[in-house]
Amino acid sequence: MQIALAQINFHVGNFESNSEKIINSIEKAKTQQVDLIVFPELAICGYPPRDFLEFNDFIDKCFSELYKIAQHCTGIAAIIGSPSKNTDNKGKELFNSAFFIADQSIKKVVHKTLLPNYDIFDEYRYFEPNRNFDIIEYKGKRIALTICEDLWNIDNNMLYVTTPMDELKKQNPDIMINIAASPFNYEQELIRKRTLALNCQKYQIPLVYVNHVGAQTELLFDGGSLAMNSKGEIINELSYFEEDYSVITVDSINQSIGATPFEKFTKIEKIHDALVMGIKNYFDKLGFKKAILGLSGGIDSALTLVLAAKALGAENVFAVLLPSEYSSNHSIKDAEDLAKNIDCSYTTIPINKVCESFEDILKPHFKDLPFGIAEENLQARSRAVILMALSNKFGYILLNTSNKSEAAVGYGTLYGDMCGGISVLGDVYKTEVYELSNFINKDKEIIPINSIIKPPSAELRPNQKDSDSLPEYDILDEILYQYIEKRKGPEELVNMGFERPTVDRILKLVNTNEYKRHQTPPILRVSPKAFGMGRRLPIVGKYLS
Amino acid sequence: MQIALAQINFHVGNFESNSEKIINSIEKAKTQQVDLIVFPELAICGYPPRDFLEFNDFIDKCFSELYKIAQHCTGIAAIIGSPSKNTDNKGKELFNSAFFIADQSIKKVVHKTLLPNYDIFDEYRYFEPNRNFDIIEYKGKRIALTICEDLWNIDNNMLYVTTPMDELKKQNPDIMINIAASPFNYEQELIRKRTLALNCQKYQIPLVYVNHVGAQTELLFDGGSLAMNSKGEIINELSYFEEDYSVITVDSINQSIGATPFEKFTKIEKIHDALVMGIKNYFDKLGFKKAILGLSGGIDSALTLVLAAKALGAENVFAVLLPSEYSSNHSIKDAEDLAKNIDCSYTTIPINKVCESFEDILKPHFKDLPFGIAEENLQARSRAVILMALSNKFGYILLNTSNKSEAAVGYGTLYGDMCGGISVLGDVYKTEVYELSNFINKDKEIIPINSIIKPPSAELRPNQKDSDSLPEYDILDEILYQYIEKRKGPEELVNMGFERPTVDRILKLVNTNEYKRHQTPPILRVSPKAFGMGRRLPIVGKYLS
Repeated sequence: MQIALAQINFHVGNFESNSEKIINSIEKAKTQQVDLIVFPELAICGYPPRDFLEFNDFIDKCFSELYKIAQHCTGIAAIIGSPSKNTDNKGKELFNSAFFIADQSIKKVVHKTLLPNYDIFDEYRYFEPNRNFDIIEYKGKRIALTICEDLWNIDNNMLYVTTPMDELKKQNPDIMINIAASPFNYEQELIRKRTLALNCQKYQIPLVYVNHVGAQTELLFDGGSLAMNSKGEIINELSYFEEDYSVITVDSINQSIGATPFEKFTKIEKIHDALVMGIKNYFDKLGFKKAILGLSGGIDSALTLVLAAKALGAENVFAVLLPSEYSSNHSIKDAEDLAKNIDCSYTTIPINKVCESFEDILKPHFKDLPFGIAEENLQARSRAVILMALSNKFGYILLNTSNKSEAAVGYGTLYGDMCGGISVLGDVYKTEVYELSNFINKDKEIIPINSIIKPPSAELRPNQKDSDSLPEYDILDEILYQYIEKRKGPEELVNMGFERPTVDRILKLVNTNEYKRHQTPPILRVSPKAFGMGRRLPIVGKYLS
Repeated sequence: MQIALAQINFHVGNFESNSEKIINSIEKAKTQQVDLIVFPELAICGYPPRDFLEFNDFIDKCFSELYKIAQHCTGIAAIIGSPSKNTDNKGKELFNSAFFIADQSIKKVVHKTLLPNYDIFDEYRYFEPNRNFDIIEYKGKRIALTICEDLWNIDNNMLYVTTPMDELKKQNPDIMINIAASPFNYEQELIRKRTLALNCQKYQIPLVYVNHVGAQTELLFDGGSLAMNSKGEIINELSYFEEDYSVITVDSINQSIGATPFEKFTKIEKIHDALVMGIKNYFDKLGFKKAILGLSGGIDSALTLVLAAKALGAENVFAVLLPSEYSSNHSIKDAEDLAKNIDCSYTTIPINKVCESFEDILKPHFKDLPFGIAEENLQARSRAVILMALSNKFGYILLNTSNKSEAAVGYGTLYGDMCGGISVLGDVYKTEVYELSNFINKDKEIIPINSIIKPPSAELRPNQKDSDSLPEYDILDEILYQYIEKRKGPEELVNMGFERPTVDRILKLVNTNEYKRHQTPPILRVSPKAFGMGRRLPIVGKYLS
């Protein structure tokens, strides 16, 4: 039996485009005498559809597309992820299902048993878990069909009381097929491969695994669909961060020698490719072409500009230098050098006059109070007003350039530098920003070396440096990582060797700035714990704050 | 047996304050020879604790507070909601539990079975469902103790496959006790009372029900704790929107005549009281006293100002009039009249000069392009910069004044009038804004009648009216209500009699403006479906858009 793995970049709710891609893949597979073609989880509507699932109209559209696609299933079977209705009068209204279609009709519907509901996942919000287990017989093969998380209750990660493959194994399957929507983070590929291999080894049968690829706002899917033999060795691995398609022969799968897995990706390379895909898909799927951003001469906006130019083409990125009286000359030169290096268009709009204009009308109210945060924020907000005006006038999307370290401690101005349609670096710590910048520069100096080596500064008052009010970034980032990604509490952090006053201050900053992060753009997610939909905290909470 | 119902306004994560309130209530009950005092769901840490639950340090603090409180339980028992640890090696790490404490020790821990995971609820994110059912025997009474949602799988709302009281009823309980965190919306009180009464009638035993009161950012808890006899008649009902405490005698509960339920509240009165509580608690729990807002002369900012003055005191609310060249004279006069009517301080800061300053520096870029959205937004954003500067300088929190109709269709400027720490009216449709304003004015004209009767306008260009680009609000709001609250699709709306082009246009506006709502302040939730944590939609989704 020949099975095709169709790793496609779907668009949530875009039925027309999704069905067209599915049908094209089916037609292509038919010309290759493929017996069965497999598409990812919820392929019909894209993943995650979120509350669109609560509209009957949306579910009806999933079904009408399935029937349309079924008409193309002649001489070939297809497995397609789609929501389905729970016809029982108890439990939630929907299942997260895999439709097995052959001879132009639906032969079997398998439901997902384990519904992830942690971090960015909300599946228990919509779906009833499966309680019945049946294998599918097709062309002499007994297929154990499961959906994503169904294979993850293995090893030491017993998050669920049921293990679907334990049930299916009783029916002597020949092969596992798993359709997935497993989002990227820089750790996920290795964990995923290990989890899938453990299943092959435990159940002693091979596996075909088909994952999503592409970005859905903040969620980035890296693809990496694969086939494994019953030893858990990879015999076929599809691309990362792009659509791909491959055909495997089931009968020889256990005779195949393990393929060389994709080892070329370091953590930083993965983050780089994920961010470029994230920017590109965000613009493509919204139907926008051009980005604008404020270029300060600092490293964050420099890196954002380079990534955007890679995603959209340098000709589609417009950089605006917005110097104030506190901007250093070298900052302006660094920004200009970068724009020239990557050949994108840029302009300079000094903000002194608008800031003075604000200060004039506020003077009767501020009276003789000293220069402070209010005046600093005026500069950041004046810049945002200018960038948004250009965005509104010419149809640019503004790129946010804040990094994760800043977002964590609230080192940024709400409605100022925290503006934008999408945050490119909001899940990238400052220390990782440096690593990414050095990676960009590995062959030649694209980001001016001066932007990399100078002390970070917001340049909102004379001679300001980030280190005036924050610990050095290597210490700050390690505390933030342990608190945010690893969820260590204050005592644990002190026991790890960090100074208590520093720990207390940082944790308080993180927790009291939740209100700022609530109002920021969606953040491209590259870590196991990003700010946004996967991290949900009270705003008026009073804990470590 | 005497049971005390302790309806308390807790603060998420504020263990010191929460424990103090719990201990004070226990000590008070002890002086009254109360046998058992009942606190709401997750009383120990406040509800909803959200991802704080993922920190071991947070869970440890819950336990240490429980042990501290237990020392006060001499001669009295207490039921206190708290997370507890799942000691099994399968399933999620925590339960949502009720601790039964007597003689200074924990006698019994009951776990929640039905974990709501819809709308604003995320309980399956954190908790493993209960699978064991035991009643509690205390002073000769057999108590069926459940937690909130456990009583809601009744009638036609069979969202779950298990019904906890069906299991507990087999052990012949004498009374039900339910501890709850049931958030307010203007429909909830009646649904809640009906649900509770159905339980009394089905199981033929009385009920003691203790709910939270107070606001946790956007979630408003209305209290209304109660006791019901086995016919489902209310024999005791606690206050709404404020802390309360009451003692009932179990042995005579079925002899008690049904109390007159609180019938004084209309929908609009409920929304009014909820919003006032929501503003007050937001400021109190964040430790802020003073609010600022932009007062336009229109009805939305007028209503927001009156509600804020009721919540915080007129002396703590500062109104800023920010007229532009497009502001009408009557708008300025209406705003001034209102500020005088409620006796709050106000000032006027014309924005012409800062707008001109922006237009000057943008002129070389805008060239001769006609006046448009960019210029309109410049005005709204200049106002926001001024309000935020005053906020930063003097420690005000900026109140957002956008209503739900505007938020729905994106009729507002991101980083302009969509700014603020909390949105007061973001869950109140424009038609309800009028009803609330008339309610405010029921005894005398507080909101100038002119603000109520004049055609709504953003006043961002000459002679602009909302109805230039939107349907009349009575039609708009009905379509929005059917789409957002009732989740009707386009075909259903057309079948209800709305014109298809209008329906298509409105739904498209709602869906394409998800990106704006993603960056707005938390919204005080008063309806069954508010924008924010209870409504989760893709930003790059392509559905009805």
